Amino acid sequence: MEHMNSNKVHVSVPELQNRARLLISCPDQSGIVAAVSQFLSDQGANIVHSDQYTMDPAGGIFFMRIEFDLHESSKHLAAIQSDFATLANPFGMRWLLSPASHRKRLAIFVSKEDHCLLELLWQWRAGELDADIVLIVSNHLDMKTIAESFGIPYLYVPVTPETKAEAESQHREAVKLANVDIIILARYMQIIPPTFIEQYRNRIINIHHSFLPAFVGGNPYAQAHHRGVKLIGATAHYVTEELDGGPIIEQDIQRVTHRNHVTDLKRIGRQIERTVLARAVAWHVEDRVIVHNNKTVVFI
Amino acid sequence: MEHMNSNKVHVSVPELQNRARLLISCPDQSGIVAAVSQFLSDQGANIVHSDQYTMDPAGGIFFMRIEFDLHESSKHLAAIQSDFATLANPFGMRWLLSPASHRKRLAIFVSKEDHCLLELLWQWRAGELDADIVLIVSNHLDMKTIAESFGIPYLYVPVTPETKAEAESQHREAVKLANVDIIILARYMQIIPPTFIEQYRNRIINIHHSFLPAFVGGNPYAQAHHRGVKLIGATAHYVTEELDGGPIIEQDIQRVTHRNHVTDLKRIGRQIERTVLARAVAWHVEDRVIVHNNKTVVFI
Amino acid sequence: MEHMNSNKVHVSVPELQNRARLLISCPDQSGIVAAVSQFLSDQGANIVHSDQYTMDPAGGIFFMRIEFDLHESSKHLAAIQSDFATLANPFGMRWLLSPASHRKRLAIFVSKEDHCLLELLWQWRAGELDADIVLIVSNHLDMKTIAESFGIPYLYVPVTPETKAEAESQHREAVKLANVDIIILARYMQIIPPTFIEQYRNRIINIHHSFLPAFVGGNPYAQAHHRGVKLIGATAHYVTEELDGGPIIEQDIQRVTHRNHVTDLKRIGRQIERTVLARAVAWHVEDRVIVHNNKTVVFI
Amino acid sequence: MEHMNSNKVHVSVPELQNRARLLISCPDQSGIVAAVSQFLSDQGANIVHSDQYTMDPAGGIFFMRIEFDLHESSKHLAAIQSDFATLANPFGMRWLLSPASHRKRLAIFVSKEDHCLLELLWQWRAGELDADIVLIVSNHLDMKTIAESFGIPYLYVPVTPETKAEAESQHREAVKLANVDIIILARYMQIIPPTFIEQYRNRIINIHHSFLPAFVGGNPYAQAHHRGVKLIGATAHYVTEELDGGPIIEQDIQRVTHRNHVTDLKRIGRQIERTVLARAVAWHVEDRVIVHNNKTVVFI
Repeated sequence: MEHMNSNKVHVSVPELQNRARLLISCPDQSGIVAAVSQFLSDQGANIVHSDQYTMDPAGGIFFMRIEFDLHESSKHLAAIQSDFATLANPFGMRWLLSPASHRKRLAIFVSKEDHCLLELLWQWRAGELDADIVLIVSNHLDMKTIAESFGIPYLYVPVTPETKAEAESQHREAVKLANVDIIILARYMQIIPPTFIEQYRNRIINIHHSFLPAFVGGNPYAQAHHRGVKLIGATAHYVTEELDGGPIIEQDIQRVTHRNHVTDLKRIGRQIERTVLARAVAWHVEDRVIVHNNKTVVFI
Repeated sequence: MEHMNSNKVHVSVPELQNRARLLISCPDQSGIVAAVSQFLSDQGANIVHSDQYTMDPAGGIFFMRIEFDLHESSKHLAAIQSDFATLANPFGMRWLLSPASHRKRLAIFVSKEDHCLLELLWQWRAGELDADIVLIVSNHLDMKTIAESFGIPYLYVPVTPETKAEAESQHREAVKLANVDIIILARYMQIIPPTFIEQYRNRIINIHHSFLPAFVGGNPYAQAHHRGVKLIGATAHYVTEELDGGPIIEQDIQRVTHRNHVTDLKRIGRQIERTVLARAVAWHVEDRVIVHNNKTVVFI
Repeated sequence: MEHMNSNKVHVSVPELQNRARLLISCPDQSGIVAAVSQFLSDQGANIVHSDQYTMDPAGGIFFMRIEFDLHESSKHLAAIQSDFATLANPFGMRWLLSPASHRKRLAIFVSKEDHCLLELLWQWRAGELDADIVLIVSNHLDMKTIAESFGIPYLYVPVTPETKAEAESQHREAVKLANVDIIILARYMQIIPPTFIEQYRNRIINIHHSFLPAFVGGNPYAQAHHRGVKLIGATAHYVTEELDGGPIIEQDIQRVTHRNHVTDLKRIGRQIERTVLARAVAWHVEDRVIVHNNKTVVFI
Repeated sequence: MEHMNSNKVHVSVPELQNRARLLISCPDQSGIVAAVSQFLSDQGANIVHSDQYTMDPAGGIFFMRIEFDLHESSKHLAAIQSDFATLANPFGMRWLLSPASHRKRLAIFVSKEDHCLLELLWQWRAGELDADIVLIVSNHLDMKTIAESFGIPYLYVPVTPETKAEAESQHREAVKLANVDIIILARYMQIIPPTFIEQYRNRIINIHHSFLPAFVGGNPYAQAHHRGVKLIGATAHYVTEELDGGPIIEQDIQRVTHRNHVTDLKRIGRQIERTVLARAVAWHVEDRVIVHNNKTVVFI
């Protein structure tokens, strides 16, 4: 399936060649915006978007996202980062400065449901996902042909209680070899072990098929049907050690009625899941999300 | 405030003078629709709307709502009801046949938040609520002036742990005297005792300020803020013995962001609460809701 | 791409083997529901869903949709249809009685944008679209590989001012040969000639990329951007001789902001278009839509 | 109706006493953010929110909104404004610097429909509208009692073709005397004359009861019903010389069906209208809206 070959989509959008993004969080104090914007101005950068939020004006946390254009910014990145560190340290900043041209590398974990995977693949092929999908991992063989049609390596790792440890070690090695930045659990129905979570802290995105915190755990659509809710939802969140308890990135819902059986809820839910996951992934790869106290600040 | 006087709004819409509604539920079997529609045809009725739902074609429950026009139906009501009982019994039907001209009588219970009460009063005055508000009950004095400006009796019953039993007895007497059909808890922050619930089974509607079953109990907006959800909601449900566990009639949500403090959630939530409660009340008074197994069938 | 082979999806859902649907419209009069439901009862049918709407109780049009189960209904279809005609004629009914097991045959017309086509293919493969996609027609070659990967014949008919008549004749022949019931214009950017519209009256569904009647004609997203709207939409409608003027089946919208360029509106719009078109197609193939006076009655 | 007396609501929220807002638009160039944030830092201000948007990084227009805390900012306002002008002029800035404690003064024009007026009055009384309603103007007497119950002067100016000029002159005098900043047309069904529009350029907010640009002019719900749309909407916009053609501030929609008559559309529409108008008014009074080329930039 040549037309789906991924070569074409790896080219970044031309207008983003000089674009870079800066994410900052630190204790609030007067003068942060002035210092940061002066720094960028001194570098010759032009701020294209900026967005800022202070949790509580009296002694809260300051969060900021700046998108700027700087001629050949990716070439001078190391120097800029080094200079920025000097500014950042006195403010106690946690920060991330990344050129838009450095596309993030995604691994997608999937089990038997294909809708979330397909949505990401379509958006990627349509040039709507500003990242590279470099690996698909599954405990089943169902998606192998799809992966291959998009020219993406497919790692089949069956998981049983006995092979769990071995499977994790295969996962680790594969994502390391593929130089993966972000892991997407696109309806991957296995628990991620704590060591893996620790290593990819705030970089594993899961889609849960309920409007969290309602219906944590298994069979959320059956739970929703049993409770008789009038809306069903989906939640994209970072994976933490607490099941379905991590920082929520995005949620959405659809209206349902008494006429909808559990199979209907699953069908309607698939539409929500793929949309919500795709939004969360897009925001993450565009450096729009900061995690603080198990919650997210999302600059959109 | 003479213009708000309720005299004018008690007049039913003229086109509804001959309108009646029939609600049915029974074990499914062949021929129910034929029997019922033949019965109505024999009475000279014209079916204006009908809606039907079978839970499971193989041995499930059958639900139906029919709206029909029958000349001077309210005059012959007793005769029609008696005849219909003969038809209904062999099918094992639970049924309700009520003329639209028999407006239901509402008591609204309220504490200190006025938005839900005001919404119902406004819809009532605008002729959008097809019922009569005959009593307002509160454990505070805050809404007394509003109630009086609409010409509605206001019963002030303070509730303390000591006066709880006495309060309940006052409530009982008042709703009985006022011949109340439905009780609306429009942000009434007191627990309703089981005997009262039993007496008004599926006729007490509460608005809970969360997207149930998430955030049961107190301070749901604070809970929502703490969990970092991206949508907040409200739920209208019939009151049962289980706190916030009764059959859900309607739910809706609004999008929120990290910028929204708990006070913002409360403000945004007030808009959802009043809309959701008003919809649920409208559906109930128009005989659109059937309760089955702690869930609702809502014909809209 | 064997896994995408359509053989598997042609099998109807087992529970629908005995299901049939009846669509009726006629001048309103007393006794229609009784007559129809008695007829079905006499055949041994069990009504599973029924929905009815009367445009104006005083002398309006009556519309009804009934879903019923009848053992081996498709075998006796001709006899039932013949009997029903006897009942229908005195009422002046326009009616359609079709077994759910008779899957409709779709032709999809497409130009260069793939999102609407992909959505329909995906829903079809997932078993969510209760019809068969038997032909894809395009004035470009872009979708040929996709069509082939799904095992669907692809007819490439380039259209120029000179070849318009010849193209139409090719289209006619192809849809006739493929025994097509419904034509879906999935972002097909050519005008459909009146003779073709006449032949497939109320059976050609187009997706227009605006919230009609706003932004009729070309470049609706550019028009929307120029006007500065805060919501953009899409509209699925039956094709008539008036450009973008046919009966609306479904519409939906998404929120946009001043930050969104025309390219953003197109990207956001693609999500709305595919959802709205897929809903409209599903409702049509499930016999849920009746057209009356350039408007639709949609029983959902 | 003493409880509705407006004295209590005039008090600003304490935390906003030191808050001020700065709105800027100018041709984009490097260094704007740095200069502005340095200026504020030098004044001892702490930036609480900031949001920025550049229309087109290559030679476009730069828009910015900053919310900052500055001790006793309202006392030193004149000095700060004078200093800021020195900074602003070389950049060619259009700007507005206003302390949150300077509450804007609203006049509401209304005809016979009360829902939009009541919504603004409720939000105002609930402390949700950060402005003062100082005058209600109407060509009818219907709202007089309501206005008086809120303690707001009510100016009754009947408008006929003969008295049009005289009416306008009364309006002008009244808003001048009341020192009005913003005029809200809350379903005021009279044309505003060009001289009045000119004087209150981008400060007259109208609610139009359709999803503009669909259904410009009179009877939009009848137009919507005739076209058979599946969603109806409302649009809040600044009034310009072109009927229903001014910059759109906010829009929203609700789903409708074939069952909804024109009276239903009006009822459903009232809910949308009041919500959309209230949002637009809130954004305007909080200095969140900049008009550019007949479109709005809304910082929310």
